[in-house]
Parts: sequence; C-alpha cells; structure tokens
Amino acid sequence: MQYHVDGELVPADEATVSVRDRGFMYGDAAFETLRAYGGELFEWEAHADRLGRTCDALALDHGLSDADLRDRIRETLAANDLDDAYVKLSISRGVQPGKLSPGPVEEPTVVVYVADLPRGGRPERGTEPVWDGPATAAVVETRRIPDAALPAHAKTHNYLNGILARLELGEEGDADREEATPDEALMLDMDGNLAEGATSNLFFVRDGVLHTPSLDGPILPGVTRRVLLELAESEEIPVEEGTYDPADLRTADEAFLTNSTWEVRPLAALVGDDGGSGSDSVELGAGPVTQRLIDAFDARIEREHYE
Amino acid sequence: MQYHVDGELVPADEATVSVRDRGFMYGDAAFETLRAYGGELFEWEAHADRLGRTCDALALDHGLSDADLRDRIRETLAANDLDDAYVKLSISRGVQPGKLSPGPVEEPTVVVYVADLPRGGRPERGTEPVWDGPATAAVVETRRIPDAALPAHAKTHNYLNGILARLELGEEGDADREEATPDEALMLDMDGNLAEGATSNLFFVRDGVLHTPSLDGPILPGVTRRVLLELAESEEIPVEEGTYDPADLRTADEAFLTNSTWEVRPLAALVGDDGGSGSDSVELGAGPVTQRLIDAFDARIEREHYE
Repeated sequence: MQYHVDGELVPADEATVSVRDRGFMYGDAAFETLRAYGGELFEWEAHADRLGRTCDALALDHGLSDADLRDRIRETLAANDLDDAYVKLSISRGVQPGKLSPGPVEEPTVVVYVADLPRGGRPERGTEPVWDGPATAAVVETRRIPDAALPAHAKTHNYLNGILARLELGEEGDADREEATPDEALMLDMDGNLAEGATSNLFFVRDGVLHTPSLDGPILPGVTRRVLLELAESEEIPVEEGTYDPADLRTADEAFLTNSTWEVRPLAALVGDDGGSGSDSVELGAGPVTQRLIDAFDARIEREHYE
Repeated sequence: MQYHVDGELVPADEATVSVRDRGFMYGDAAFETLRAYGGELFEWEAHADRLGRTCDALALDHGLSDADLRDRIRETLAANDLDDAYVKLSISRGVQPGKLSPGPVEEPTVVVYVADLPRGGRPERGTEPVWDGPATAAVVETRRIPDAALPAHAKTHNYLNGILARLELGEEGDADREEATPDEALMLDMDGNLAEGATSNLFFVRDGVLHTPSLDGPILPGVTRRVLLELAESEEIPVEEGTYDPADLRTADEAFLTNSTWEVRPLAALVGDDGGSGSDSVELGAGPVTQRLIDAFDARIEREHYE
C-alpha cells in the first residue's frame, strides 16, 4: 500500500510525519474521511466544503486548492489500484517554531491514507461488508465537547473526546468481558440532550417522522447525515431536526446511525442507556422508514457510481 | 540535535512517527513538559506522577517504568550535551488497527524532545532568558473544555482548545496588528469563572492573600503551580484556592502566571478582558508577594540544582 505525504506517494511503512509536526504534538490538524465507490469519490464537494470550514475554524490557511487535494486522493487510489475504498485526508499546520501559538502556515503536512473498503452491508459487491449486522450502542457519561470550547463542526485530529466515550464501552478485544462491546458510544451534550455517536450521527423514527439532533447542538454536520436528509425529502418522509432527550430515543420505533464508513446502519438496541446504572436494554432496530432510506441511499450510489 | 524515539536516539530530522500513529491521527497521547537545571530534572517525580494519571485517564497502559522514562530523558540530554533544557516527553498508543476504539497498547510511541533553555528571567545563567519582561494576557471567548468532556488533569496531545484560545489573540508574527499580541490567553470555564491560561496556571494577590483557581474547576494541576503553593506555605503567605470571576482578577493587587517554561512570570496587564468589546486594559504586575515567591522559587532551584 502507498500513502500520499506532502505531495509524494510513499510506501505505507515510510509514511511518517516529524515528531514536531503540530498534528502530532497538538492534534492541530483538519481531516475528512470519505469513500470511493467504483473509482469515484462520493460527495467530494461536500467533504471539501467541510474541510474548508474546519480549516477556517482553525485559521489553518494551507493554500492548496480543492482540485489539488482531490488530485492527490485520486493519485493515491490509482497507485493502489483501488475502486472501492476508505480515504482519510489530513492537513496539519506542519512543523513550526516551538510555541503553542500558531504562525502562518508555510509548509502544511498533507496526508492521504487509503484502505480497501467495499460497500457497507452490500455483500454482492464482494469481500467483507463493513458491518455484518445492525449496531448496538450505549449512552455514555463522557459529554460532547461544547461549541464554546471547540466547535463541533470542525473535524480535527483532537479526537480524545470520542475515544474516551468509546473506552467507556470497554477496550477492543477485551477477553474479560462477558458481553459483546457495543459498537457505538452515544454522547449527550452538557445539558443532557442527545448529541451524536463517537463517529456517527444519530437518527430515529417515531410515528413515521424522522428525527435527528439539530446542528444547533454540538453535532458534526455529517456528509452522510445531509445526504439522508435530502433522501428523506425526496422520499417525502417528514423530518424534524430538534433537541432530544435520551428518553425520546428509548421510545422510538426505529433508529439508525450514519457515517461515511457505515453509511446507514440500523441501531438494533440501546444497551444500559442510563449512564451505567444497569437499566434494561431497549430494542430498536430497522423498520419501514429506515429501509426506504437505505434503499434510496443504495440506489443513489448505484446510479452515480456503478452504472 | 538528537531526539529519542521508541528507544533510540535519532537525528532531529529523522525523528518521525507513522501517519497512522494514534498520536497523529487523534492526538491520542499523553505528555509532560519539564525542565532540566544543571543537568538534573526539576520535579521529575511530580511529572512522572501526573503522566501516570494522564495515562490512567486515557487507559493508555504503556508498560514502561518511570525509571525507564527518566533514563530515556537523561540519555537524550547527555547526547545533546544539555544541562539547562526544555524537555517534552510524549507517549502515544502507537499504531493500531484502523478503528477509533483503542485496543491494548502493544507498541507505544515514546518521544523525548529536548531544546536548550536557560533559567527563565535569570540572565546571569547565560544566553537568552525565556521571557524578557512580564506577560500580558487577555480573557478570551474560547471556554476551557469541561471535565465531563475531557478531564483537565490529563495533559494530552489534544491541545486545540488552547490553540483556539491563543488564535483569538492574533497569529504570531501578524504584521497587520498595531499592538503587540498578548502573551497568554486566559480561559474561563463554562460558567464564566476563571480557569487558566492556554499554557499556564493563574495566580493573583489581593490584600496579601495569594489566590488561584481550585482544582475543582477544569484546571491542569501544574507542577509549578504546586511548587508555588508549597513555597507560599513555607513563606507563610496565606493562600486561597477557590472559584473566581474575571472581576476578581481585574481588581487584584498583583498577578502572575506559572508553567515549567515560564516558571513564575508576573502578569503585567490584562488587555481588553471583556471578550473583545473594547474595555480598557487593567494594569496588574508584580509586587511584594510575587517577588517573595519568585525569590523563593529561584532559591530552591539554586539550592537543588546548582550548589
């Protein structure tokens, strides 16, 4: 596998950054994760726009055009002969003099990482699906960082908030656990309202209405989230973006999680969702609305990328 | 200059980490910055303890002993022939499979970065002082991340909160600014109480009493902060750790900032401290209590490191 670092394709084991790179020292970097389907990037413009907004929030003026960034991604996919792939594009402020306060970006670090990744949950497109069943999730105690401290719309290398949330579910591969680790940690905002998963946006359906936490809260404006809202509109499914309590999710008819990797993944159950005091799990899962949206999402990708 | 990476001394320009290192991807790493004076580490045990608590908070079980870590630092100082130095020790979870949820740490990344650094504000020890005058600071709008989202006692590579705070003061070297950029950004907690600077703890003196925000708030338990509290006790200066409003600082008689690099740096003035709406600056600065503490701090370092 080859990755793309600072304008060059390099073998994976030589793809490095300086220990003085601000991306390593401070997580002072912006990123996007996106998908390639049938050799073409899915929703590139939306990802490029969000990357731009993240860089604006960080005052990280890297000076590269969207077209340049896209070319680097395409070059990396081609070098690795990948059609269906996971792509991570990162831009850090690079190495600067030893101060916390950033200076103008002279040499940004630009990394393109890729991995083979088939369509999620679509075995007919070969190899392993990203997920082989609906997700389970638990509401964790770690709260989503409020916008006043770090704007949620900025997708940055400061990801410990989500990591701490996931750690509450148990370490990956912990053999001491009797039960399977939930797939996702759902975080509340500081006021106790539903925010989002560590790596996913949350949707639920009640009485035929699709609900999702509004971007007024500390919510990453997921690209898949926006696509789902568009699809819901064209499917004439009523949508409400609002502020919700965990109890709203517990009493939902259907629920699902979205991100670029999982696409649309039904949320089968909420495990001990009261912050660990041991309440019973709640079954959620897919249903007619979720299925219509999954079908519409699949149809869009098929139409745009494989026909 | 040589740095120490994963057990080996390497030339500075070859000191790198993988682009897949979790320290780079997520800021998923713990660090300490400390000082060497006269060839010996200042307050090593306090730094090692805090590093341990940070790693506990991140469930980052690196498996290395404090003695091993200290040896790596000593080896790096010796290789660079440094007696008075700035030291940064970082430990990340290393490269793991491509999931956000961490697994057990098999190969942590351990980096020792060093730089020549004389005693702060002590020109008699040669070369440039760290700071050549008291600091100025401004209270910024970026709020300190609450403990419920990311525990403030953990010193991690997720440092964007402080960087955004500093960015409010203007970019380093911005030629368009008419006034000098303040040295430090003071952050409030979510309730509007004084927390700390982006890289420093805050102290102020009023009516002979030394005040500092208590660790009940989202405050890094600075090693220099603790040393100052010890020195205040032995100097019989009354101390109050509490919850303070910015107005308490504005009306203080003296104020100073502490961190390992600055040591004890008087805070000369608070610039436009109402969040940018243009109120007048407030003069603070050193005074008899600050000077006694600086003298006691200097005496301690002289006694422990140079005699």
